[in-house]
Amino acid sequence: MKQETINEVLKFRDDRNWKQFHNPKDLAISISLEAAELLEVFQWSAADLTCEHKMDKIKEELADVVNYCILMADACGLDLDTIVHEKVKRNNEKYPVAKAYGNKEKYTELKDK
Amino acid sequence: MKQETINEVLKFRDDRNWKQFHNPKDLAISISLEAAELLEVFQWSAADLTCEHKMDKIKEELADVVNYCILMADACGLDLDTIVHEKVKRNNEKYPVAKAYGNKEKYTELKDK
Amino acid sequence: MKQETINEVLKFRDDRNWKQFHNPKDLAISISLEAAELLEVFQWSAADLTCEHKMDKIKEELADVVNYCILMADACGLDLDTIVHEKVKRNNEKYPVAKAYGNKEKYTELKDK
Amino acid sequence: MKQETINEVLKFRDDRNWKQFHNPKDLAISISLEAAELLEVFQWSAADLTCEHKMDKIKEELADVVNYCILMADACGLDLDTIVHEKVKRNNEKYPVAKAYGNKEKYTELKDK
Repeated sequence: MKQETINEVLKFRDDRNWKQFHNPKDLAISISLEAAELLEVFQWSAADLTCEHKMDKIKEELADVVNYCILMADACGLDLDTIVHEKVKRNNEKYPVAKAYGNKEKYTELKDK
Repeated sequence: MKQETINEVLKFRDDRNWKQFHNPKDLAISISLEAAELLEVFQWSAADLTCEHKMDKIKEELADVVNYCILMADACGLDLDTIVHEKVKRNNEKYPVAKAYGNKEKYTELKDK
Repeated sequence: MKQETINEVLKFRDDRNWKQFHNPKDLAISISLEAAELLEVFQWSAADLTCEHKMDKIKEELADVVNYCILMADACGLDLDTIVHEKVKRNNEKYPVAKAYGNKEKYTELKDK
Repeated sequence: MKQETINEVLKFRDDRNWKQFHNPKDLAISISLEAAELLEVFQWSAADLTCEHKMDKIKEELADVVNYCILMADACGLDLDTIVHEKVKRNNEKYPVAKAYGNKEKYTELKDK
């Protein structure tokens, strides 16, 4: 995330003295709750529902998920760009292009191909 | 997110021709699934469990959540920093410092204070 | 649930002296985690994927969700059949047949019809 | 579940001609969404929060989770009591009392004890 976005989120938290509530377990719960609010946009919807259909709600809920990810990263002393970079590196090994191209199976199923 | 992080995530997807699977509904499902994997770190754990205790797993699962958020943003033509900034602005109105200081109640409960 | 099913689940818990871990918050977390395991069966799948396709996994994960619901009910002194019955009664008022027939909208949207 | 509870849930669905929307994937999504509504009761709460504190909300949301489990079981031709019974049997092997007594670790960690 851009540093100014992170600063904005942390300032909002600290202006209200909310850091006291932000233990990692409750932050993890919060990420799950916001993820469910985002998923609710698509409950009963066709698989090919476009974002345009519910754009405002998607923006709102996706922002809430990321907001809590920023708070979680801060609580654990992590940098989101760094951990995502490291994960993509590991995924490159788990899902070699040769086996994974056009194939959505999990790496445990890819192994035997 | 930093542009290079976003590029890395999108390149991983495109190298494997996986964009065809990434409709918004399935991406929203994926964010929820990864959020649950992160929450599982804290199942049965004490409320004050520190991140250090399970740092590797937290890094991994938090990265997975953010990874799918990047993919969702791309699918919907959104910029994560922009939507988080807009949400913090709206939250500043919903949770005025005067009412929200040290108080974790939702804005619907704050309104009457 | 049939009383013998409930007894089986509670006996399993008590044989292992696990009731000490079963505070309502962690049970609620567990229900969410198992719900995610069930949802994972359908990640990336077509909307019309039948149960037959992954029946064993569906049985397993759906059973896990219900298992924790039984434990949650026991922790809160509730009877699952009773609370479901009461909820259906309330839903009958929220979603009158005349307005809801063939219509999947939430009651807040139905109100204006 | 008691047959009359199941009948009540299915009648509610059929009175409104809602079975057409109830494919397994969307039912699995719905179970997750209701599980999140239940978990929300405990967001930011102390680990030892009792059920009494939010009993009405817990009854409501737990009922919603079970309601969708009944609908999922019907969609897949399953009996909830049967699959729970089968799962408890399998768990008895995964978590032998001798190893699992008073121990909340997953069976993969128990194996080496």
